[in-house]
Amino acid sequence: MTTGIPMAHYAAARRVGDFVFMSGVVAVDPTIRRAVCSYEDIPMSALPALRKLGYVTGQMSVDVYEAPIVSQSWFVLDRIRQLARENGGDMADVVKLVQYFRQLPHYAHYNRVRSLFYPNNPPVSTVVEVSRFLPGDEVLVEVEATMYLPR
Amino acid sequence: MTTGIPMAHYAAARRVGDFVFMSGVVAVDPTIRRAVCSYEDIPMSALPALRKLGYVTGQMSVDVYEAPIVSQSWFVLDRIRQLARENGGDMADVVKLVQYFRQLPHYAHYNRVRSLFYPNNPPVSTVVEVSRFLPGDEVLVEVEATMYLPR
Amino acid sequence: MTTGIPMAHYAAARRVGDFVFMSGVVAVDPTIRRAVCSYEDIPMSALPALRKLGYVTGQMSVDVYEAPIVSQSWFVLDRIRQLARENGGDMADVVKLVQYFRQLPHYAHYNRVRSLFYPNNPPVSTVVEVSRFLPGDEVLVEVEATMYLPR
Amino acid sequence: MTTGIPMAHYAAARRVGDFVFMSGVVAVDPTIRRAVCSYEDIPMSALPALRKLGYVTGQMSVDVYEAPIVSQSWFVLDRIRQLARENGGDMADVVKLVQYFRQLPHYAHYNRVRSLFYPNNPPVSTVVEVSRFLPGDEVLVEVEATMYLPR
Amino acid sequence: MTTGIPMAHYAAARRVGDFVFMSGVVAVDPTIRRAVCSYEDIPMSALPALRKLGYVTGQMSVDVYEAPIVSQSWFVLDRIRQLARENGGDMADVVKLVQYFRQLPHYAHYNRVRSLFYPNNPPVSTVVEVSRFLPGDEVLVEVEATMYLPR
Amino acid sequence: MTTGIPMAHYAAARRVGDFVFMSGVVAVDPTIRRAVCSYEDIPMSALPALRKLGYVTGQMSVDVYEAPIVSQSWFVLDRIRQLARENGGDMADVVKLVQYFRQLPHYAHYNRVRSLFYPNNPPVSTVVEVSRFLPGDEVLVEVEATMYLPR
Amino acid sequence: MTTGIPMAHYAAARRVGDFVFMSGVVAVDPTIRRAVCSYEDIPMSALPALRKLGYVTGQMSVDVYEAPIVSQSWFVLDRIRQLARENGGDMADVVKLVQYFRQLPHYAHYNRVRSLFYPNNPPVSTVVEVSRFLPGDEVLVEVEATMYLPR
Amino acid sequence: MTTGIPMAHYAAARRVGDFVFMSGVVAVDPTIRRAVCSYEDIPMSALPALRKLGYVTGQMSVDVYEAPIVSQSWFVLDRIRQLARENGGDMADVVKLVQYFRQLPHYAHYNRVRSLFYPNNPPVSTVVEVSRFLPGDEVLVEVEATMYLPR
Amino acid sequence: MTTGIPMAHYAAARRVGDFVFMSGVVAVDPTIRRAVCSYEDIPMSALPALRKLGYVTGQMSVDVYEAPIVSQSWFVLDRIRQLARENGGDMADVVKLVQYFRQLPHYAHYNRVRSLFYPNNPPVSTVVEVSRFLPGDEVLVEVEATMYLPR
Amino acid sequence: MTTGIPMAHYAAARRVGDFVFMSGVVAVDPTIRRAVCSYEDIPMSALPALRKLGYVTGQMSVDVYEAPIVSQSWFVLDRIRQLARENGGDMADVVKLVQYFRQLPHYAHYNRVRSLFYPNNPPVSTVVEVSRFLPGDEVLVEVEATMYLPR
Amino acid sequence: MTTGIPMAHYAAARRVGDFVFMSGVVAVDPTIRRAVCSYEDIPMSALPALRKLGYVTGQMSVDVYEAPIVSQSWFVLDRIRQLARENGGDMADVVKLVQYFRQLPHYAHYNRVRSLFYPNNPPVSTVVEVSRFLPGDEVLVEVEATMYLPR
Amino acid sequence: MTTGIPMAHYAAARRVGDFVFMSGVVAVDPTIRRAVCSYEDIPMSALPALRKLGYVTGQMSVDVYEAPIVSQSWFVLDRIRQLARENGGDMADVVKLVQYFRQLPHYAHYNRVRSLFYPNNPPVSTVVEVSRFLPGDEVLVEVEATMYLPR
Repeated sequence: MTTGIPMAHYAAARRVGDFVFMSGVVAVDPTIRRAVCSYEDIPMSALPALRKLGYVTGQMSVDVYEAPIVSQSWFVLDRIRQLARENGGDMADVVKLVQYFRQLPHYAHYNRVRSLFYPNNPPVSTVVEVSRFLPGDEVLVEVEATMYLPR
Repeated sequence: MTTGIPMAHYAAARRVGDFVFMSGVVAVDPTIRRAVCSYEDIPMSALPALRKLGYVTGQMSVDVYEAPIVSQSWFVLDRIRQLARENGGDMADVVKLVQYFRQLPHYAHYNRVRSLFYPNNPPVSTVVEVSRFLPGDEVLVEVEATMYLPR
Repeated sequence: MTTGIPMAHYAAARRVGDFVFMSGVVAVDPTIRRAVCSYEDIPMSALPALRKLGYVTGQMSVDVYEAPIVSQSWFVLDRIRQLARENGGDMADVVKLVQYFRQLPHYAHYNRVRSLFYPNNPPVSTVVEVSRFLPGDEVLVEVEATMYLPR
Repeated sequence: MTTGIPMAHYAAARRVGDFVFMSGVVAVDPTIRRAVCSYEDIPMSALPALRKLGYVTGQMSVDVYEAPIVSQSWFVLDRIRQLARENGGDMADVVKLVQYFRQLPHYAHYNRVRSLFYPNNPPVSTVVEVSRFLPGDEVLVEVEATMYLPR
Repeated sequence: MTTGIPMAHYAAARRVGDFVFMSGVVAVDPTIRRAVCSYEDIPMSALPALRKLGYVTGQMSVDVYEAPIVSQSWFVLDRIRQLARENGGDMADVVKLVQYFRQLPHYAHYNRVRSLFYPNNPPVSTVVEVSRFLPGDEVLVEVEATMYLPR
Repeated sequence: MTTGIPMAHYAAARRVGDFVFMSGVVAVDPTIRRAVCSYEDIPMSALPALRKLGYVTGQMSVDVYEAPIVSQSWFVLDRIRQLARENGGDMADVVKLVQYFRQLPHYAHYNRVRSLFYPNNPPVSTVVEVSRFLPGDEVLVEVEATMYLPR
Repeated sequence: MTTGIPMAHYAAARRVGDFVFMSGVVAVDPTIRRAVCSYEDIPMSALPALRKLGYVTGQMSVDVYEAPIVSQSWFVLDRIRQLARENGGDMADVVKLVQYFRQLPHYAHYNRVRSLFYPNNPPVSTVVEVSRFLPGDEVLVEVEATMYLPR
Repeated sequence: MTTGIPMAHYAAARRVGDFVFMSGVVAVDPTIRRAVCSYEDIPMSALPALRKLGYVTGQMSVDVYEAPIVSQSWFVLDRIRQLARENGGDMADVVKLVQYFRQLPHYAHYNRVRSLFYPNNPPVSTVVEVSRFLPGDEVLVEVEATMYLPR
Repeated sequence: MTTGIPMAHYAAARRVGDFVFMSGVVAVDPTIRRAVCSYEDIPMSALPALRKLGYVTGQMSVDVYEAPIVSQSWFVLDRIRQLARENGGDMADVVKLVQYFRQLPHYAHYNRVRSLFYPNNPPVSTVVEVSRFLPGDEVLVEVEATMYLPR
Repeated sequence: MTTGIPMAHYAAARRVGDFVFMSGVVAVDPTIRRAVCSYEDIPMSALPALRKLGYVTGQMSVDVYEAPIVSQSWFVLDRIRQLARENGGDMADVVKLVQYFRQLPHYAHYNRVRSLFYPNNPPVSTVVEVSRFLPGDEVLVEVEATMYLPR
Repeated sequence: MTTGIPMAHYAAARRVGDFVFMSGVVAVDPTIRRAVCSYEDIPMSALPALRKLGYVTGQMSVDVYEAPIVSQSWFVLDRIRQLARENGGDMADVVKLVQYFRQLPHYAHYNRVRSLFYPNNPPVSTVVEVSRFLPGDEVLVEVEATMYLPR
Repeated sequence: MTTGIPMAHYAAARRVGDFVFMSGVVAVDPTIRRAVCSYEDIPMSALPALRKLGYVTGQMSVDVYEAPIVSQSWFVLDRIRQLARENGGDMADVVKLVQYFRQLPHYAHYNRVRSLFYPNNPPVSTVVEVSRFLPGDEVLVEVEATMYLPR
């Protein structure tokens, strides 16, 4: 169960009919009350898979540019997976993603991370670059997910 | 019944199955053919509730910065409520909102106004800052709503 | 059947229940591996209808400003129509469009082209101006469509 | 006869030898003392021809981007025609135009409107984009005309 | 008594005749050696009054935009009240304020907070937006106060 | 007596000892609720003196650039004179002015207008260019005056 | 006769038929090899007339913003008058002026100066704001004149 | 005879009385439908003269900055010479040029090239820097010519 | 006694009651009619004290960045001291300074120079960064001083 | 052996004593006379190693952001290896690299590619972000190498 | 011995023949994994010498602008001295420095600090302002050193 | 022998082993204490060779853009030649140049001038565009040279 202060008054997810709609997710960890920005802000158990993709190099000059988007991508998708599970489904049931970025070159990194969450059937996907997210400029990606889970 | 010229050729709302999809709503009043920008552009009946939130202060230097976003927020959400009612539902049935802002600091004001429309269960909510809306720069917020209303 | 290299790993469309969700579509022709930018990049059969709207003037100084958005608008909506047909429906079943632009003045041109695809009931429509699209700055419009097609 | 306050002290037109030189014309209506900016600022009799070109759509989101340049183009060229007539000639005698724009994409619209004034022999034409015009930023086009009218 | 390192060599306040002039005050807490930026940087005893004004909502996406200016406004005015008391007067004797902001939309928030310090006779007041303050960009408001306290 | 809504809660002027401090004055006319921007926004009785300075030319292309600052300068200084009189003094007793501009080239015009109010002993004067004023961007000058009027 | 180095290889003026075309004139004094920028750069005999217009105030903070455009305007128009005379005509024969400015607010000043050269019939006049002139950024106005002088 | 699509509907040149007015010329080659940008876009017969001026060095890092403006200058002046000849005159009869640049430092190069076309009497010449030309940003210079050719 | 042309019509200082108000002072030397910008623009007698602070290094690449603000700081404070003396007081009686900078990093240098003028009791001090000063961009600091000198 | 036109007159490399100095290398292929910008601009034999690093994904939206810097990095380092070999050494003898980038986030990609060329002892390395390179904006990296090769 | 994570894979220094080449050094302390930014980030033993230069004033408003560059300058030069010693030499043997800055006004401060390291023979020195350094924007200076140390 | 004040404390050149390293050279003439900016700032004996390259045209509008970079290029390379000679070598021994520019289009001019100094074997050469040089913005090029001169 997440603790800390809430982002705002809204429902994280809501089932209506055969669908579960989710609010847009950003990589703000309520326990630390700020955006995820480094590999140390995500669980150590996530790192081996990211290392296989070539990330988490341990070289500061490389990681400094990649860690924020890579760790946010992982955090956001992992949070969506949690919400899917809390609602009785799994990532494979999350069939549609709208993905907003502050800088589209981040997409290349996000795309590699997403492949870890969708080893098989990829979802329907929309990608646009927008200006900013709540709660601040350090948030680099927001993902809005739709799950289909017929009763 | 609204009069004046239309924004463009599109359907304001459309029922498909158990859902009513609504077009993105902006605070353009067709009777005045421009965006809402002050407390005088919304019905006087709306003001007492806004005053309780601390707005409509009557001080020009305060209202000048708050009136545009506060009155647009009210106008847009009220229009969504009208569309919900025209389609047989109510605000509580509007379960999902995608909210676009031109400047995210406006979110704090919008959020207070939205609480007037959702006294109980808040909807699923996505918030992003984008560049601009139709029909012009004075539009500060656009909201796309989805209603769930099983037959 | 389209050939060439894919944009990324994602599903172009996916049926869930009575809905077909489509990924955001941009005017990148996989056979030429770049964005559509002139009237020569779309089929000749599309030109007479566009000419009736006043486009494809044959004057370089006019077409240079209009061809990119007019031809991209046609390409994107035509691709959505193809996806609709591949999934057993038609444009009239595509009931909801979210339309992102890089420059909102392009909307006027897009709007004329869209009327060719929706001679009768227009869809529910959301329009916002955002910053950029994949795969590059020459992409001017992205459209995300939802089709309703009860089984 | 125009009324209202003058733009400045200058001659609107002047015959020297076989030529009539005209001052640069902008779409400022002296009776309203501001620049023309909408279809309502030009005579209703002008609208049918513009509608045939695809303008004056009645859709706010389309007209908002096109009305300023289309109506200014019509106003400016109509004013030049008036000056030509006041000096004993007609549009066909206006053989040379220097056309300044604030944004060259406006040329496409101007070009269509100009075709209404020159159904046959087009004039010699120079087009450049400059920074601004008198009396203010809302002026989008200025045209300097030369008439040849041998005595 | 404040501790920590000084901002610079200057007198915080100085009595001359019946007046006490105060140096411009910014919300830098010498004990933490940086600008006040959140509700946690001001005493808990200040929060109930701010909550009554609608602030300190506990929603991160709302507070993130309001906390910096609201808490700085409180800190600065409280510091002026302390200086007034150290010199034998009270807030009611501080008859003139010059208020500099980095962003004038902050004035609306400051104005609400100031009403807590001036429940009755408001002071003479000058407000301007300037570029920056010492010691850094995170400082949002500076207030220069004049107290009148006849001996 | 001025009517309309107030700018904010503050004292326009306040006598303390032998001094009358005045709040910063901007050219916002409470009866029209917006900034003064043309010669028509100030009393006709003010125009002859301005005409002698070379202003109020009646040429739109000249007045368009000069009217806003010239009429605001007159309005602000006239308002200070009113406040001086309401407090028992006159312009000659207003011994100190701090003058803030948004664009310093406006100073040349302001300076000519000020000479109408100070035919003899000019006051002590500080001039700086700042970023903006309340209540909005159309305000070009703010003046803070100090009157000395021994009892 | 002017000395110093030439601006470039071009003809200052040229008679063809009943017309004398002049090259665009900027206020670069070949004897000092730089642009005119102060009242000291033009003949003392020109100053009394400028003083009557309210210029040449002797106050540095006023003149600093006005002297460059006022003295360049005088220099340029005086040069055109010289060219007219060298070709057998006078200012009254210069019937057409195209006037380019770097900043259109300069037009108000230029316009006053021009009235000294055209006490009676003003010429046909075109005014546009462009980006820059030869030979450098300190040049504020360029005027291209046409003289009509039948043989 | 040139082929390809036209720039727009206008007359390239027109004789009226003893004058031939020409439309502004830009270096767009109708056979390649884009602006001239390298030495390969102009006839090889033009290169020796340009080489004598020090251009066409064969070093990529030198030519990359000079080729666009040098070759456009040649193309534009050559086109004017063709128009002069088609109308019965020659370059020496082209007595007046208005030359617009996007970047004035290009003038130095243009000036050298123009000397090839005017070995003897240079024309009357006006030079200004403007913002842009039709049909696009790669056009660096536009020249409007007037020929005097008494019958 | 200073000579040269005045900055504008204003009083440099004025005694009212026990106070002497001074106009804002900038480092413009009326004898050279421009802003102080190097160590050569201030008296040689001032240099040893500045050298002790580490300035006036004699190395061009160091002095080029420090000389303008250091010498202006000295000039302005010295001018205030002169005004204090002309009015019967001294620097120690100047109890309040409002200091405006164009770039706040200049404060560090100004602060060191000010210590030369206030070896003991520092004044009440307000510091803000603003946009510009009269008469031009090269002015880096303006100081408004208030002296208390009971009769 | 490379053909095509040279970049400029300079020596690609030069042995002096025990050192071979190399000119700064950019990824301009003389055979195609433009900068390398995609994986197709480098030999196919280079791709497998890049694929192992996670590049050359075949997804257009990923490759579009990575291909330019990855392929330029490979081209530049390969060219340095060629120069080393032409001078009798190998990459291991290239002991010092100065690496200039237009955008430092590119460093992460470059760094991975460089590891292919230095499997063992990495060189001494300096990295800075600068503004631009010859011959144009599409060049993203320049490397200056020093080889030590005692005779 | 330094610990923490490395910047990247490169050699800090390398002897070849009589030279020791050093990689560009930035003030990133591997033990704290971020750039040095205050006097507390360098050893206390370094402060007395910096205080003699006039730094480390203890006034927050002064130190805030000077501490980052002064402490980085000391850190970088001290690190070069360490590298020199690790390779058997000393600072006097470091005969050549290439110094990159993000803002050249920092040079004045760096220059004073460098004099502490080179009391006698200064090195050969190149200074340029570039855009950015690894690993981030807070790095203000990078120095590349060459040591000559014949065996 | 040069006189005037030094740029800073550094060695202009230093022999170590068989090499002479030179500090980066900029075109600041110590006798005039500012950057070279016109053909009059370099010896007249240098002009004939520059004239042969097409420079020093005597036309102000041409020279104004070319003189600064052409004369700085000559000055810098001439100064390197002097340093080479003072150290017993000549330009042919200067085997390596690192050349920094503020604007790369200046390279074309520099390149022509350099050919005067290297009629035969060109040196190893690196070229980058950076932001700025000491001591100010008017410096356009800096060159760092390395001479090889075995004893």
